[in-house]
Amino acid sequence: MSLNLVPFVSVDHMMRIVTLTGVETFLRDLAAYIEADFRRWESFDKTPRVAAHSDSGVIELMPTSDGETYSFKYVNGHPENTRSGRQTVTAFGVLADVATGYPVLMSEMTILTALRTAATSALTTKVLAPLGADTVAIIGNGAQSEFQALAFHALMGIRKFRLYDIDPSATERLIANLSGKGFSMQACASAQEAVLGAQIITTVTADKRYATILSDNMVAEGVHINAVGGDCPGKTELARDVLLRSEIFVEYPPQTRIEGEIQQLDPDHPVTEFWQVLTGHAPGRVSDQQITIFDSVGFATEDFSALRYLRDRVSATGLCTPLDMLADPDEPRDLYGMILRSAANTPAREMATAAS
Amino acid sequence: MSLNLVPFVSVDHMMRIVTLTGVETFLRDLAAYIEADFRRWESFDKTPRVAAHSDSGVIELMPTSDGETYSFKYVNGHPENTRSGRQTVTAFGVLADVATGYPVLMSEMTILTALRTAATSALTTKVLAPLGADTVAIIGNGAQSEFQALAFHALMGIRKFRLYDIDPSATERLIANLSGKGFSMQACASAQEAVLGAQIITTVTADKRYATILSDNMVAEGVHINAVGGDCPGKTELARDVLLRSEIFVEYPPQTRIEGEIQQLDPDHPVTEFWQVLTGHAPGRVSDQQITIFDSVGFATEDFSALRYLRDRVSATGLCTPLDMLADPDEPRDLYGMILRSAANTPAREMATAAS
Repeated sequence: MSLNLVPFVSVDHMMRIVTLTGVETFLRDLAAYIEADFRRWESFDKTPRVAAHSDSGVIELMPTSDGETYSFKYVNGHPENTRSGRQTVTAFGVLADVATGYPVLMSEMTILTALRTAATSALTTKVLAPLGADTVAIIGNGAQSEFQALAFHALMGIRKFRLYDIDPSATERLIANLSGKGFSMQACASAQEAVLGAQIITTVTADKRYATILSDNMVAEGVHINAVGGDCPGKTELARDVLLRSEIFVEYPPQTRIEGEIQQLDPDHPVTEFWQVLTGHAPGRVSDQQITIFDSVGFATEDFSALRYLRDRVSATGLCTPLDMLADPDEPRDLYGMILRSAANTPAREMATAAS
Repeated sequence: MSLNLVPFVSVDHMMRIVTLTGVETFLRDLAAYIEADFRRWESFDKTPRVAAHSDSGVIELMPTSDGETYSFKYVNGHPENTRSGRQTVTAFGVLADVATGYPVLMSEMTILTALRTAATSALTTKVLAPLGADTVAIIGNGAQSEFQALAFHALMGIRKFRLYDIDPSATERLIANLSGKGFSMQACASAQEAVLGAQIITTVTADKRYATILSDNMVAEGVHINAVGGDCPGKTELARDVLLRSEIFVEYPPQTRIEGEIQQLDPDHPVTEFWQVLTGHAPGRVSDQQITIFDSVGFATEDFSALRYLRDRVSATGLCTPLDMLADPDEPRDLYGMILRSAANTPAREMATAAS
């Protein structure tokens, strides 16, 4: 491809890549890329994401680099967007070559973020959940919920789901979308009912406030909690007492202490970095009674892994379009000359049309 | 335009917009937008850019927001890129709506950055240069140099340029590209020769190191210096003694102290923020003998201004393409359902082709 062109994966391409690959295969393979990058955690430049907060939501930039490849994601979080028919979370991102600074892939990441969030949840749950866990409660049945269920099935073979949303139609949609997969899906009347008999609890609500989706009495010994929805200052899902009873696992502490459930705790409350569990530097779950929490906020390396996996899928499928994004004069220092030659080559008729 | 589509200005569009508008009109109008945003400096969220440094260069993200509109730019700086036929600096950027977090414009910014850098130089020079200045020395005749000359002409009516580059062919290219404009352009054999008789000196070299493009003896009383090329830790153009004799004006001190010429000085060395001169909060040039320096590193608000101006030019010309960048399910929470329906609508033949 010419130097000025950057392969672009549109939303339509992304849907076709996921469909061609098979969504569960995609989730499983993506989780393998995420795991591989967690295992080489120390090779990444890491920084808390750069957030621009407003009354209505947040816009964030999430950069990282392993010294050879750089990535960043643009992502927003606006809980009231659904009222105007918009997504709460949309995203796009770029993979670039560190040696030249040139972007090598640009992609939609609304769908890809949903997939990588679910893949990360299932990966961490597989490592931290009690042995024999076969039932997952999913509290909050919005846009992320199907991906969570599919990832638990793809990575752990889980088929039993207990579902709750303050809006019953959300649960109905989730059940309809996943029908025919042989899942047992129970719509529940409350979060309290949903957690009954579940060894794994995923909270994926979207409210931007301190909420108590799980109160202390709802959390039994031995469960594993994925706290996915609390990912912003002032936005949490778990009662503080639940945190105090639990062993807490996180992605990148400097970011999680700002954004995660642990913003409710002292800044030096002990947490375990998940990569250390994977690499054997720290223990994971040590007993059947222990409550484990993955305080998920989403970290830049997961997007890096997702874009890296996507690049390989794009190579395999050819599903992208070239984007004329980088000025590429014949002589690099002759940027202005490129404009001059472009003007000389533009027919007068076309110029008139464009100006009209 | 549909919610999922983001207007995209390609390199080709940008060249046509500049040509249609007229490059000097573009620079003058763009400078007016930049000035307007400098004048409301306090309404912006400001942060030093987020830089990923490597041996070969730097990749930076430059976000800002005025509370209604958000922008960021991705920009790299890789001085050795020209050896492989690539640009030293390439860039793209996004304008977004703070209320929803949705991008409203994406654009190439390699050309736009060259234009905004030159417009900023001419704007600050117009304010800070000595009265009656009519001659500009341009030291470093790379990709930015034509834009500098055009901006000085567009904003200040300057026609006399004294030019120097370590590579004489760069100066030849600059002179050829600007021929026919009635400019007086003198190719000089050294930087020392170039500054003779110039009341304004622009340094726009690209080396990533501590360089001394201007030594103390080369800088006469009363000149104004645009130090454009020194914009990275470890990359400067002026001798420290020149700085100590001068009144220094900057964009955003926390960033300039990291990246600008003043990285050579004590962290509390006094500098004046340019917006304060524009708004009358601080004096600009106060005598004909004073040496003034605009220690330009390029700040996010200038890109914000450039994207804001571009959005208006795109509205006037229609020169953009819709980019399928944001997932837009009919029902915002039904992201997975959108993938399901996409799969149902993709003909098997097309899927097979894409997979092959």
